Amino acid sequence: MPQYTAPIKDIQYILHDVLKVSQQGFNGYGDLDADFTSAILDAAGSLASDVLAPLNRVGDTQGCQLKEGIVQTPTGFKDAFNQIKDGGWPGLDLPEEFGGQGLPYVMGTAVGELFSAANQAFTMYHGLTHGAASAILAHGTDDQKSTYLPKMISCDWTGTMNLTEPHCGTDLGLMRTKAVPQDDGSYRISGQKIFISAGDHDLSDNVIHLVLAKVPGGPEGIKGVSLFIVPKIQIKDDGSLGASNGVSVGSLEDKMGIHGNSTCVMNYDGATGYLLGDLNKGMRAMFTMMNEARIGVAMQGLAQAESAYQNAVLYAKDRLQGRAVTGAENPDGPADPLIVHPDIRRNLMDQKSFIEGARAFMLWGASLIDASHDGADPDAEGLISLMTPVLKGFLTDKGYEATVNAQQILGGHGYIEEWGMSQYTRDARIAMIYEGANGVQALDLVGRKLALDSGKHVLGYFEMVKNFCKDTATPQMDEFTTPLKAASKDLQAAAMYFMQNGMKNPNAALAGSYDFMHLFGYVSLGLMWARMANTSLKALADGTDDPEFHENKLTTARYFMARQLPISATLLKRIESGADPVMTLPSDAF
Amino acid sequence: MPQYTAPIKDIQYILHDVLKVSQQGFNGYGDLDADFTSAILDAAGSLASDVLAPLNRVGDTQGCQLKEGIVQTPTGFKDAFNQIKDGGWPGLDLPEEFGGQGLPYVMGTAVGELFSAANQAFTMYHGLTHGAASAILAHGTDDQKSTYLPKMISCDWTGTMNLTEPHCGTDLGLMRTKAVPQDDGSYRISGQKIFISAGDHDLSDNVIHLVLAKVPGGPEGIKGVSLFIVPKIQIKDDGSLGASNGVSVGSLEDKMGIHGNSTCVMNYDGATGYLLGDLNKGMRAMFTMMNEARIGVAMQGLAQAESAYQNAVLYAKDRLQGRAVTGAENPDGPADPLIVHPDIRRNLMDQKSFIEGARAFMLWGASLIDASHDGADPDAEGLISLMTPVLKGFLTDKGYEATVNAQQILGGHGYIEEWGMSQYTRDARIAMIYEGANGVQALDLVGRKLALDSGKHVLGYFEMVKNFCKDTATPQMDEFTTPLKAASKDLQAAAMYFMQNGMKNPNAALAGSYDFMHLFGYVSLGLMWARMANTSLKALADGTDDPEFHENKLTTARYFMARQLPISATLLKRIESGADPVMTLPSDAF
Repeated sequence: MPQYTAPIKDIQYILHDVLKVSQQGFNGYGDLDADFTSAILDAAGSLASDVLAPLNRVGDTQGCQLKEGIVQTPTGFKDAFNQIKDGGWPGLDLPEEFGGQGLPYVMGTAVGELFSAANQAFTMYHGLTHGAASAILAHGTDDQKSTYLPKMISCDWTGTMNLTEPHCGTDLGLMRTKAVPQDDGSYRISGQKIFISAGDHDLSDNVIHLVLAKVPGGPEGIKGVSLFIVPKIQIKDDGSLGASNGVSVGSLEDKMGIHGNSTCVMNYDGATGYLLGDLNKGMRAMFTMMNEARIGVAMQGLAQAESAYQNAVLYAKDRLQGRAVTGAENPDGPADPLIVHPDIRRNLMDQKSFIEGARAFMLWGASLIDASHDGADPDAEGLISLMTPVLKGFLTDKGYEATVNAQQILGGHGYIEEWGMSQYTRDARIAMIYEGANGVQALDLVGRKLALDSGKHVLGYFEMVKNFCKDTATPQMDEFTTPLKAASKDLQAAAMYFMQNGMKNPNAALAGSYDFMHLFGYVSLGLMWARMANTSLKALADGTDDPEFHENKLTTARYFMARQLPISATLLKRIESGADPVMTLPSDAF
Repeated sequence: MPQYTAPIKDIQYILHDVLKVSQQGFNGYGDLDADFTSAILDAAGSLASDVLAPLNRVGDTQGCQLKEGIVQTPTGFKDAFNQIKDGGWPGLDLPEEFGGQGLPYVMGTAVGELFSAANQAFTMYHGLTHGAASAILAHGTDDQKSTYLPKMISCDWTGTMNLTEPHCGTDLGLMRTKAVPQDDGSYRISGQKIFISAGDHDLSDNVIHLVLAKVPGGPEGIKGVSLFIVPKIQIKDDGSLGASNGVSVGSLEDKMGIHGNSTCVMNYDGATGYLLGDLNKGMRAMFTMMNEARIGVAMQGLAQAESAYQNAVLYAKDRLQGRAVTGAENPDGPADPLIVHPDIRRNLMDQKSFIEGARAFMLWGASLIDASHDGADPDAEGLISLMTPVLKGFLTDKGYEATVNAQQILGGHGYIEEWGMSQYTRDARIAMIYEGANGVQALDLVGRKLALDSGKHVLGYFEMVKNFCKDTATPQMDEFTTPLKAASKDLQAAAMYFMQNGMKNPNAALAGSYDFMHLFGYVSLGLMWARMANTSLKALADGTDDPEFHENKLTTARYFMARQLPISATLLKRIESGADPVMTLPSDAF
């Protein structure tokens, strides 16, 4: 049975030593001292380890069942969900006005990692509710807010997002689901939506679907799409539950992973829905939810990698196999533990240096969201908008890769289901696909975000890296900033290549978009590792009661600089090869 | 339902245009003219597409069942197995003397790709029998050969290999299975073996297990290991089946993939076994089987990639989503097919350039095995011994990556089981693990094979690359040989780094072993692409009735050179960072 221990020490290090959250001055950050965040993380960590993690394999093996139109979740999910509700965790970073705890987004992200690492399929039930609540918070009328938010923030009602249809995923302009206006101001929603995570289940009293649909006679394509609130069970004027709505589960999808989450085909047969936000501006409203969901999915990449890594390390220390090439390290035993072997360490260091860098990247990104809500930093919103596809695409690709590497440490035991390592890879795989497949993230990054506000945000990013290197310049920092500068130069050269060639031939930019997304991810992790190195060098110079921790950070930073970051040169070379290698082959020759 | 079409044209191109097999002069190669190989490949291709491929998902969803001690294979497997037997396919490249067809190994490999691509789990039943038969052929007495080989080559009896025990996989010196000598010259075998592919099933009349075990009182560790033939059902002197032996299936493993193959825990309780080869030289005998199995596994990496690629291409041409950025390409339809989008093409070109390069690499490797059997080329054995870990490690890693990329093309449809793309990744995943996990391949490459015969074979490889570039030097070839030379230079620099640093500190070599294995793989695919470019340039210059085919080869070669091969520089940089980044972190800091 796989184990999970919340990496609280590392999160505390990032929050307080690296990001120094309590000194940032953003709304609510003043309360985030180390004792306070530690108390929250300890409580969440216990829930994650003791309640959610033991249900992870249960969810995988049992899956969900559709019985008489209602989805039954795996044994134990309902009890665990009630514990999550009772602790107020779903509303941790949602407004107190509607029953939330009003903490900053960065704390929701930190806690989200723990829950998601312990049980991704389970955590999606309240995770999606959070996203749906955010959309209603941002675009709902006062009535809608008071009707839905208290119940959703408590998770008495859960939420979903309904975009995909059988014939359209990314290209939502092709959507067929219809919303016909009624005399009372409501709409009748008809159509089929697929891949609806947490689409139905037995964990809550009601499910509030946010559904994209077209009002007949509206503009063609994506410009005619609106967003609707469609409750599974209708809500009476007094807020109590009324008759059922025309919403049903067509079937449950048989998936590669996240079996514990109910992925539904949803049928809407003249269901009553209510417009959320403006008519024909559905994509804008949905993007409030989507952007948040993308950050949440990025975090899943990190979270599954962390869980898989922990179990690979346990195995590598426990399994006796072979002898260290430089002499026995466990001479009294029949063999040495796996972890003495250089290639096992190479694999584990790859995982570790990714995970800790990714965690810093995630929490820094979350702090940008707080900064943008706060309005204190005028550049924060543009910067996190730029970074969102990088976070989503890079952390889920590399997170998946980390789970595959962790599985490899166990050899044949990694391939059989009993040890749980297969589940990490199968669960992590979806994060590269949902909320916009990673190729779409790359397109968003290169096709939209780079040029946003005349390129102001990407230039700001380069400036930030440059300033960091300048401001921290010491002989000791050179070994970290020199490779960071080289990689950042490659990233700038790639952006320049797009600017010079993309105008004439957009394919020259788009052919390199995926490589650019990864290059941006590596540079960002490089920046995080340089920041952590700077933090730990200072801690060691100032005197610390835990020098080993900081020495180990420096060792891991050196690994990242020596063995991960140099790939920037190859990625640049791929990008600069332009459109021809990618676009020349005739379609029928594939 | 996924489709599979045998890539016969590409195999024919490699056999006849690139490798020119019928001119090589190796034993049996004189018969391999294009008509003959085409007839074989057509017949095998039909079986693969029409019989094996439709059972692939059946095997995945039904799996195997252990009922009253006997494993039942999925519906349809028995009929299909009989068709494979009736066609004489299991003995295609085994000696006519024992009922085989006596064709060269290269044809067994070409046909093996088709069967494995269509249904990996199914193909393992006769694939492992082939390996077991080869071991008996190489190490058996005349009696053993006449007793077992005819039945095994016809697949009336199938074979297995039994190495792993619960506490030891790679480190077989720790083995506990015992073989106690009996007065009649036989042995009593007792112990438990795990992860035994095709360990039991209902496809054959008997199962011939090759089992590694220790004779009590023999040398310690791996030097005391011997190999035994242990039939499931005892064989009477007249060759007919007698009483059952003390062999039983403990349980079936629940695995991530290859559900159609029965992976068994095998219990030996005083079973009667017969020494195969010399006492205490079991590893040598087993390696006859292992080396062949490793090449077979390399081929599985290629095969799953090919199947997944074919289905990704079908989807990319069929699925309408979005518009080409340079203007609609399907203006009368609601949207353009996915394949117009640069990042979809980038993904498909990555797969295609890997697959076709890997196929050439595989068939060239197989021809080296024929050359070594033939004795005509004195360097062939050393060269294929060097290339075996590269083939196994690189093709299975990259093959798996290709299946993941193919799955990505389908978005959410790639994640649900209905479309079959998940199965390709789940099946391909095992190839990185079994027959020596890829980290062990890297260790074998750097720790043993590089220095074999004083480094003669790796130096011969470099010489071969150099000579190829010199011999084919034309202005048109420059664009292919220039990147090949650069990558080969990186590979040589890496080998040089190991020589200079590995003597002082073996960890300096082993820390870079995995990167070296990949670097060697990229250079080898680069060599194959340069050879194919040379072949196709000549065909175009000489006049060909299929210029498109050769132009497309050149386009794909250019892609590989522009976007895949440049990673050699990054891999060299990782290698040259040496032991410190990998070895410094204390074990308890993981």
